Amino acid sequence: MNQTLTEQIISHAVGHPVRPGDLVIVRPDVAMGHDSLTPSIIEIMRDQLGVADVKDPDQIVLAIDHVAPATSVDTANMQSTIRTFAKEQGIRLFDAGRGIAHQVLVEEGIATPGRIVVGSDSHSCGYGSVGAFGSGFGSTDIALVWATGQIWLRVPETLRVLVTGRFRPGVDVKDLALKLCRDLTIEGATYDSIEYHGLDWLDLPGRQTLASMAVELGAKAGIVPPAGLPADRFEVPDWLYVDPGAHYYRTVTVDLDTLEPQVAKPNSVDAVVDLSEVEGTEVSVVFIGTCTNGRYQDLRDAANFLRGRRISPNVRMMVTPASSQEMERAAADDTLATLLQAGAVIGSAGCGPCMGRHQGTLSDEDVCLSTGNRNFRGRMGSPKSRIYLASPLVAAATALTGRISDPRDGMERS
Amino acid sequence: MNQTLTEQIISHAVGHPVRPGDLVIVRPDVAMGHDSLTPSIIEIMRDQLGVADVKDPDQIVLAIDHVAPATSVDTANMQSTIRTFAKEQGIRLFDAGRGIAHQVLVEEGIATPGRIVVGSDSHSCGYGSVGAFGSGFGSTDIALVWATGQIWLRVPETLRVLVTGRFRPGVDVKDLALKLCRDLTIEGATYDSIEYHGLDWLDLPGRQTLASMAVELGAKAGIVPPAGLPADRFEVPDWLYVDPGAHYYRTVTVDLDTLEPQVAKPNSVDAVVDLSEVEGTEVSVVFIGTCTNGRYQDLRDAANFLRGRRISPNVRMMVTPASSQEMERAAADDTLATLLQAGAVIGSAGCGPCMGRHQGTLSDEDVCLSTGNRNFRGRMGSPKSRIYLASPLVAAATALTGRISDPRDGMERS
Repeated sequence: MNQTLTEQIISHAVGHPVRPGDLVIVRPDVAMGHDSLTPSIIEIMRDQLGVADVKDPDQIVLAIDHVAPATSVDTANMQSTIRTFAKEQGIRLFDAGRGIAHQVLVEEGIATPGRIVVGSDSHSCGYGSVGAFGSGFGSTDIALVWATGQIWLRVPETLRVLVTGRFRPGVDVKDLALKLCRDLTIEGATYDSIEYHGLDWLDLPGRQTLASMAVELGAKAGIVPPAGLPADRFEVPDWLYVDPGAHYYRTVTVDLDTLEPQVAKPNSVDAVVDLSEVEGTEVSVVFIGTCTNGRYQDLRDAANFLRGRRISPNVRMMVTPASSQEMERAAADDTLATLLQAGAVIGSAGCGPCMGRHQGTLSDEDVCLSTGNRNFRGRMGSPKSRIYLASPLVAAATALTGRISDPRDGMERS
Repeated sequence: MNQTLTEQIISHAVGHPVRPGDLVIVRPDVAMGHDSLTPSIIEIMRDQLGVADVKDPDQIVLAIDHVAPATSVDTANMQSTIRTFAKEQGIRLFDAGRGIAHQVLVEEGIATPGRIVVGSDSHSCGYGSVGAFGSGFGSTDIALVWATGQIWLRVPETLRVLVTGRFRPGVDVKDLALKLCRDLTIEGATYDSIEYHGLDWLDLPGRQTLASMAVELGAKAGIVPPAGLPADRFEVPDWLYVDPGAHYYRTVTVDLDTLEPQVAKPNSVDAVVDLSEVEGTEVSVVFIGTCTNGRYQDLRDAANFLRGRRISPNVRMMVTPASSQEMERAAADDTLATLLQAGAVIGSAGCGPCMGRHQGTLSDEDVCLSTGNRNFRGRMGSPKSRIYLASPLVAAATALTGRISDPRDGMERS
């Protein structure tokens, strides 16, 4: 039977071949909860489901990444509850400052090719970067997994993204992710699983950027085929491979050779235009971070662009590494030092200001260019603030001038 | 006329010799406002005093250091108000991430020997580290300075602290500051100015640690005589010197040769004991930062202690550099990298969790060992949390074990 990666993974999990549309009950390999929702997941499990203890502590991972370290006695006490729960139940916890779950679970070898990883966070689709089926669920669904070890799924149809060519200088995988939002719109892949083909050459951080934004198209999951992953870190099961006979209900193509830098305008992830259309727009804040673009390579790109230069006095630039390991890498060479010298503010690893709850919440007046994944009204703070989304290179170029800028203007043109 | 440093500085400012007890009106050289109080200072000036514009923008400095970067739409909008005010009035502003005012004003050459620096923050006494008369005032007083350029003062009596000997390994200037709290109590120097003698050999960071804690004794100011300051950075006016004939109403002595590591127990800065009395007390949080102990040298001491080691899994360790410059120095060598490898969480420069408003607010359960200057009930978050104060070396040793520990146990004993 010819299957897509998603069909292969779910078939393997249930023990028999599945087809799109099948309703199945699976045992996820991992069920992740983060600090914003874990207290309510615990409450649902205990008070509504009447289950005191989790079914399988080894299946569960907790992360304190959203408002971390705590910003108030309330958030501190909620995090304290999570620590106590983790200790009592024998669950692995990644505490405040360790980083964003989606980054940490990849670093720790918890998200691996062929696994099913569900999480209380919508960007759990990012685990598709390592060939896992990653998907975000609501608190009640996660509580059910913790209580029973299982979850039900409808097997998604698979949409294929076929990528040709290579990025030109100044253009990167974030531009590809935004181009897909532009072409497909935010409902273009509703409940689909996306498979990204033609990217065996793409590095892991690039895959993470891409897969993390599958949910912005409405997708249930987004998987980069695991061929090309670092072999020393990721073992690919022999049943997981791109099957030339697999059925994709739709294929969309993107040619990187002609791709321009992309920018999503306020207030929708699919309000995407070529950078040239918004070039010169004044911004007050630049943010580099999130599960989409907070890795070492993203910081490095920005640092290389800004080396020896100073950001505009009209801009505040916030940089939040995605994890402590990525921050360590940036501290071990001159990346952090260069960003600091350029005038950036470096915050502790985690989700940072992405949800507007600390590390630079936006005011009524603020216009932000962010490397994150969402620009909904009020996402990063005030509903009056406005958010543009772009790549780390565009972010660096914009920080330098105080206006949305094309990074190719500061680089050697090829 | 023989005068103390404080009497010399105030005499110079008013243009005639003053004595303790004199009521005088002076024009401070600098009037600093920070983000927590500047919005209300502006409101008092405009709505209660009916003054639209500040008297002298060059006299004023603004800093966004307390809850910075912003943690909520409210704090973001308040900081936006400050930015607008600074721009309108032509006032110099140090924005979020630049660091704690008390550090930044020294770095920027705004606080210098012989100046009068008033601020809306109680630890403005820290400017005494460079031979300035630094003092904290309430919002109404600062509003009056902004409106009129002037402030009234009662000339303080001067209490002399006479220091002999040198620190032994594992003991540092924070232990001296805490020993003074122990010997004098929190009301031992009420409205006095303190002069610290016998420390011409002490480096600037050490002077900053010491002077920042003068207010914990109730003092109006605390001045380290400027002899020994780096001559390339600080010009000492010829009228400012330790006059052998000056009158000190009281002299207290501390011998560094016999000083042990000191710890202030919850919930008072003068509940100070030798470390040995509280050794072994479990803590859940270690914090290195603040205007008292957040400088490069403090981070370096901790990094040197922790190099190649990993903190206890039972401890969260938060490190907040006092300023972006100090953070840059720590990024330029292996200080930040070493702390990260040891498991510390590094936050953006500023006041950090010192006031419990972000970057690791304490929960009900938390017991914190902090290098800060205050351990009042609820200071860093929950009123149920408990705070011990100690040096960065003690903080590093404690982070390693999860219990209050003597740093000398991990060092070469002399």
